[in-house]
Amino acid sequence: MNDTLTKIDQHIEDHVEHWIEQLGRLCAQRSISAQHDGIEETAVLVTEMLRENGFAAEVMPSNGHPVVYGEGEGTGEKTLLFYLHYDVQPPEPLDLWNSPPFEMTRRDDKLYARGISDDKGHIICRLAALTAVREAYGSLPCNVKFVIEGEEEIGSPNMPQFVEKHQEKLAADACIWEFGGVDYDGTPQQALGMRGICYIQFSVQTASQDAHSGLGGSIFPNAAWRLVWALNTLKDADETILIPGFYDDVLPPSERDLALLDKLPDQSARVKETYGLDGYVGGLEGGLEWKKTAVFEPTCTICGLDSGYQGEGTKTVLPATATAKVDFRMVPDQRPDDIFKKLRTHLDAQGFADVAIELLANGRPAKIDPDDPFVKLTLETAVDVYGKEMMVQPIIGGSGPSYPFVHILNLPIVSAGLGYPDGQVHAPNENIRINDLLLGIKHTARIIERFGRE
Amino acid sequence: MNDTLTKIDQHIEDHVEHWIEQLGRLCAQRSISAQHDGIEETAVLVTEMLRENGFAAEVMPSNGHPVVYGEGEGTGEKTLLFYLHYDVQPPEPLDLWNSPPFEMTRRDDKLYARGISDDKGHIICRLAALTAVREAYGSLPCNVKFVIEGEEEIGSPNMPQFVEKHQEKLAADACIWEFGGVDYDGTPQQALGMRGICYIQFSVQTASQDAHSGLGGSIFPNAAWRLVWALNTLKDADETILIPGFYDDVLPPSERDLALLDKLPDQSARVKETYGLDGYVGGLEGGLEWKKTAVFEPTCTICGLDSGYQGEGTKTVLPATATAKVDFRMVPDQRPDDIFKKLRTHLDAQGFADVAIELLANGRPAKIDPDDPFVKLTLETAVDVYGKEMMVQPIIGGSGPSYPFVHILNLPIVSAGLGYPDGQVHAPNENIRINDLLLGIKHTARIIERFGRE
Repeated sequence: MNDTLTKIDQHIEDHVEHWIEQLGRLCAQRSISAQHDGIEETAVLVTEMLRENGFAAEVMPSNGHPVVYGEGEGTGEKTLLFYLHYDVQPPEPLDLWNSPPFEMTRRDDKLYARGISDDKGHIICRLAALTAVREAYGSLPCNVKFVIEGEEEIGSPNMPQFVEKHQEKLAADACIWEFGGVDYDGTPQQALGMRGICYIQFSVQTASQDAHSGLGGSIFPNAAWRLVWALNTLKDADETILIPGFYDDVLPPSERDLALLDKLPDQSARVKETYGLDGYVGGLEGGLEWKKTAVFEPTCTICGLDSGYQGEGTKTVLPATATAKVDFRMVPDQRPDDIFKKLRTHLDAQGFADVAIELLANGRPAKIDPDDPFVKLTLETAVDVYGKEMMVQPIIGGSGPSYPFVHILNLPIVSAGLGYPDGQVHAPNENIRINDLLLGIKHTARIIERFGRE
Repeated sequence: MNDTLTKIDQHIEDHVEHWIEQLGRLCAQRSISAQHDGIEETAVLVTEMLRENGFAAEVMPSNGHPVVYGEGEGTGEKTLLFYLHYDVQPPEPLDLWNSPPFEMTRRDDKLYARGISDDKGHIICRLAALTAVREAYGSLPCNVKFVIEGEEEIGSPNMPQFVEKHQEKLAADACIWEFGGVDYDGTPQQALGMRGICYIQFSVQTASQDAHSGLGGSIFPNAAWRLVWALNTLKDADETILIPGFYDDVLPPSERDLALLDKLPDQSARVKETYGLDGYVGGLEGGLEWKKTAVFEPTCTICGLDSGYQGEGTKTVLPATATAKVDFRMVPDQRPDDIFKKLRTHLDAQGFADVAIELLANGRPAKIDPDDPFVKLTLETAVDVYGKEMMVQPIIGGSGPSYPFVHILNLPIVSAGLGYPDGQVHAPNENIRINDLLLGIKHTARIIERFGRE
């Protein structure tokens, strides 16, 4: 290890209590985007914290919640962009929390609070790493920029337009994403892409009011039946999506992607047990085919069904309305607008012009070249910190607003951070392990140091 | 009009305030079967009221809520049975009531209370009619029996067994059912049959917990999808029910049935407007075909769908559970146990052994011979009271526990009573018009008088 790295690590270890204190300060500020609770206050607080740590910072308007933009000058010419978010999931159900969600609590080697992992811990992680590098060097070795948004937990609806509008201001050479961390056995994870999403509400109204099923059963149109029949035309029981042209733009995984998947440990047995599944769809039983299907296949998932009477016992009602929420995950190069249009055409062609669809959220899929030099340096620096190779996922099943960063700003994106599988992200008792925070800071610092130096 | 009828009518008119007071007393006693609220207390009160009016009465156990049984001796040999129920629907939503639901309130020519029409008004109607006839005659012209149950509003699950067990005790020659009344233009209604019902809950569980749709979308079984696919196999978009053998026991309407239907006014335009329908299923546009389909076709109605996230906006969840409530209305000679069995066989054959079904309520269809002498006397006496012919429906779309009365006790059943279309039965502000109460008592009294005399 070179001297600078030794000094960086020392600084991080010496200041861990300071950063935990700063994390507590940030977690104490509510910032629930779904409920618009504390959003403006948090944007101001994050701006202050960036300034306190030597960065220029401002609150920028978007078409939704404000975005905190920050920047700092380095000695090198390259620029590193940090994408993060200051908003959190709602804390409910409150009675399942063992300590107040907006009061950071330390128990044993863990810290508990809403947003402590997702994503306030990562904001602190980046500040701590940058500070340590600057203290060790006397200056930052590269320029840095921050985009810290306030709508990630509600699907980042305004990020694509924000990035497009401010693409000159946000220009950079590489990007560190908002998450990262280790698996059950402490192996750090690298995600090199995300599927896109097209989240659609289906609504049917067949009458102005519900009717008694004895009156209308034989002669009234039934909203629940219309919905069931319409949904049934979308996907076969063998999981084939039936919308004409749905698969047109699907790119198969490359040989390189498949090689990366093949190197990943087979989690199929563990996942099956965790979720109490009898088995996977299509008779999948783990292995490369399971790994490939899990992330390289587009999906059509019913997330919710709602119609008529849902209480105990019986109510003989014929429902006037029915809704479904359906989430399509898209792989490169599928596009939400195209899928939405094909869906409408399909429903009309199948006789379901009465079924209304509304696009509630969308984002395009994006993939990073696994052989990009920035990916390479991220993987190499991780070995130093974690003592083992990162597990590289060529794409993950989830979605995020990475498309504009990859395809408008033309940035390679890597993940690095402090998450771990029992972090209860989006659930009560969200938590991080203090040691993961330390490791995440060290890895982030090494990426900055090496990126600035090369 | 003969002297006795004049005396009967006079007695009814002289005592209407007394019976309104008794109705207020009965409505003040809560008797919500779905919530088991006030059930035993009401059974005792009804027993007391029968005794106060000269009938022997007892509270009899059933496998569920107690049944009030009553009897009174007459001079003739024939026996008339009254089927009624003392339980009511829940009063919720309370904020929509203009006066307390369990405090009878008189406004203009109407009386308001939960259960005032369904079915406490009918209990009072029968007592008032019997008292008037007895006062006019000096004795009752026929024996009478009462079966007043406490589970009608929850589907009368124990009535078939109760009737079968006590068939000797309940032996009679004819039966007056628990409802009756007039249409919008004051025409009295006669219902000569009811469809059966088979109310089934469908349940699917595919995992022990919900999953993130990004994780499971391509590889996890989805409870909502399993439910949609299973339901889709039950009925075509052209309303044909696809369960093998479903139609095996369906009897087509007789020529007599069709003639009765043909005489009924065409309500299709009014119903279409009331419910805000664009049109009826299968292109029906009123007329005999519409009337026939509405009551002589069996149905498969989705009453409720419940799965996953149903709130505002998006939640990217893959649901572990899904349920549907489905109501089959059956026509003679279909049987709920047979339909339930055929449904299970069908689901298994279609690959849906994972879809559990539970029979929540059931009752067999029953039809009365329109040319039965008891029907004839009911229709004739109505003309006297209402000044016009009854509208005779050979069967109605709804269901009730009439099967054991028709097929175990071998009784002809007629309807007579005090309902009217704006009575808000099962809804807030349930009400009756005082004049309908008077007419219902007079018609009931005439049926008793004529039945005893012939």
